[in-house]
Amino acid sequence: MKGYVFHGPGQSAWEEVPDPEIREPGDVIVRVDAVTICGTDLHILKGDVPEVRPGTVLGHEAVGEVVEAGADVRTVRPGDRVLVSCITACGRCRFCREGMYGQCRGGGGWILGHLVDGTQAEYVRVPFADLSVYPLPGAVANEDAVLLADIFPTAYEVGVLNGRVRPGDTVVVVGAGPVGLAAIATARLFGPERVVAVDLAASRLQAAKEFGADAVADASEGPEQLVEDLTGALGADVVIEAVGVPETFELCTRVVRPGGHVANVGVHGAPSTLHLEDLWIKNVTITTGLVDTHSTPTLLRMAAAGRLPTRRLVSHTFPLDQMQEAYDVFANAAETGALKVVLGVPQHEVVPVHPTV
Amino acid sequence: MKGYVFHGPGQSAWEEVPDPEIREPGDVIVRVDAVTICGTDLHILKGDVPEVRPGTVLGHEAVGEVVEAGADVRTVRPGDRVLVSCITACGRCRFCREGMYGQCRGGGGWILGHLVDGTQAEYVRVPFADLSVYPLPGAVANEDAVLLADIFPTAYEVGVLNGRVRPGDTVVVVGAGPVGLAAIATARLFGPERVVAVDLAASRLQAAKEFGADAVADASEGPEQLVEDLTGALGADVVIEAVGVPETFELCTRVVRPGGHVANVGVHGAPSTLHLEDLWIKNVTITTGLVDTHSTPTLLRMAAAGRLPTRRLVSHTFPLDQMQEAYDVFANAAETGALKVVLGVPQHEVVPVHPTV
Repeated sequence: MKGYVFHGPGQSAWEEVPDPEIREPGDVIVRVDAVTICGTDLHILKGDVPEVRPGTVLGHEAVGEVVEAGADVRTVRPGDRVLVSCITACGRCRFCREGMYGQCRGGGGWILGHLVDGTQAEYVRVPFADLSVYPLPGAVANEDAVLLADIFPTAYEVGVLNGRVRPGDTVVVVGAGPVGLAAIATARLFGPERVVAVDLAASRLQAAKEFGADAVADASEGPEQLVEDLTGALGADVVIEAVGVPETFELCTRVVRPGGHVANVGVHGAPSTLHLEDLWIKNVTITTGLVDTHSTPTLLRMAAAGRLPTRRLVSHTFPLDQMQEAYDVFANAAETGALKVVLGVPQHEVVPVHPTV
Repeated sequence: MKGYVFHGPGQSAWEEVPDPEIREPGDVIVRVDAVTICGTDLHILKGDVPEVRPGTVLGHEAVGEVVEAGADVRTVRPGDRVLVSCITACGRCRFCREGMYGQCRGGGGWILGHLVDGTQAEYVRVPFADLSVYPLPGAVANEDAVLLADIFPTAYEVGVLNGRVRPGDTVVVVGAGPVGLAAIATARLFGPERVVAVDLAASRLQAAKEFGADAVADASEGPEQLVEDLTGALGADVVIEAVGVPETFELCTRVVRPGGHVANVGVHGAPSTLHLEDLWIKNVTITTGLVDTHSTPTLLRMAAAGRLPTRRLVSHTFPLDQMQEAYDVFANAAETGALKVVLGVPQHEVVPVHPTV
């Protein structure tokens, strides 16, 4: 089969690789019908994630059909259309038992396209299938479902739930890329008073409005002042970091109110400065996290009901074998306007969902 | 009357000051029978807390007798023996309504010995008395009660409760000064598997054992290894920072497990480095906070029942007019072995409590 293989920093190709095979009785083999590219994949290509060995097929998000299942698999069988989650879960370790699947110590966690071959291929082996793939409702189209493999649960769990958004809150989302937009949309589910989006790009701030931001601020023009004006100089109840650089994290800790929450979603490659000389007295809570995907069943029900604006995040689609082209468009988002790119997406018999959120 | 007055960085004296008077109908005047000195007072003397104006009487912890009460005061009356809390609370603002009295926006919060004259004097005016002083049960002696004005609720709320200590946890307390020792003692209330104390001083590590630490580690000898060994390389469930310098905060973020909590109690004067390049994926929660004192009534009941080792923290007592001598002993703790110094402490008719914890 063909797959997109990492060969070391700056080197990768869509090329012939061995077909995956069942290795453990909990494995399934999934034919990949739709797959996307994550910002994390770009970090891997840059060499920022050194534990990814050359020769690994990238990708940790997919929709497809189970074509083979190991002897122990109980929740899906060949022929089932499934979502392949970015997180696999052994279901047996301490962390899995607490619903913290992203920290699985039993061989799962984020392994696809990281420690084992991933989803950017014609087929993928998924370990621990019972807890790692999800049968898909017919009402959820492939290009909607694939966004529930990582980006929506990440924005919702690591941003909105960790940040404890509540009715009446002022929520600031720093970074209006795909994850930030998904955070804006899912923050709205909790009835905030207002959501404020901060970014450098006017096009992204425009997108933020379409995803539900009530106010937007150019990051280069002192967004602190806007937050002050909107909150009577108090600061935001919840601030979600969806960029991953020190400047934006530090901005988050400046605009949060006493007693407020900073939820870090961004993937960071460098340390930040934590101004404890100001923050020690402020009763703030700062959270970090890899997604656990405990919310995936909920998000699937909501997607089936048309309550998530998944489709609006898909800016480009490609055939599966145009993986390199898709990477080029995604990596140059500033020029191409790319949000999420989806590859594959064959026809299937579903009623298209028109998001209403 | 006499009071201990701040005259600017490095300048202070026990000297004649005007008697306090009722200014608002919610005020009380308390005769100070016992008072202590906080590490924060030393920060003020160094000039680290610039909002303290020269001429301010220092101190934010006391036990005494109400000698006069404003017309609106309902919960205490002249003759009552009371605890004067480090936090006063208007009771009407948004933060007070949420129990976050430390962040009071209605004129309270930490004001005594900070924004208004404090407790290191013969008398003190306490605003918002109904929510800011606590009638004392007879079973709690002055030198026990005075430790419930700040240090015990701070260690308990900002360390143990914010850190969400739970049964079976490994709790690491970095810094075995008075607040760290109080954190060790109150962490034990939640049935942890073990409490590990980290400090540089052998005498403090010995004290930590007496307050309930199961294991101790010299901060200069790589406490990370001990925590690794004790937790199967996982890390601590809860880490409480009770020092207030970047090195110790950063140590806390190194020894916390995935999904664990770092509760900062230390008063910081400088920024720390937050290693988000490691932490973004670890699902950690970092909290900061000024004490709210919502736990003070609970702690008073526990002290009355002899369930808090308050007395063990008192290393030195002085008459009230030896305030400068007490400061000298407290500020030179490395030489004097001081934990908490208590001034005043006249006789009163109580049954001495022998702590059993």
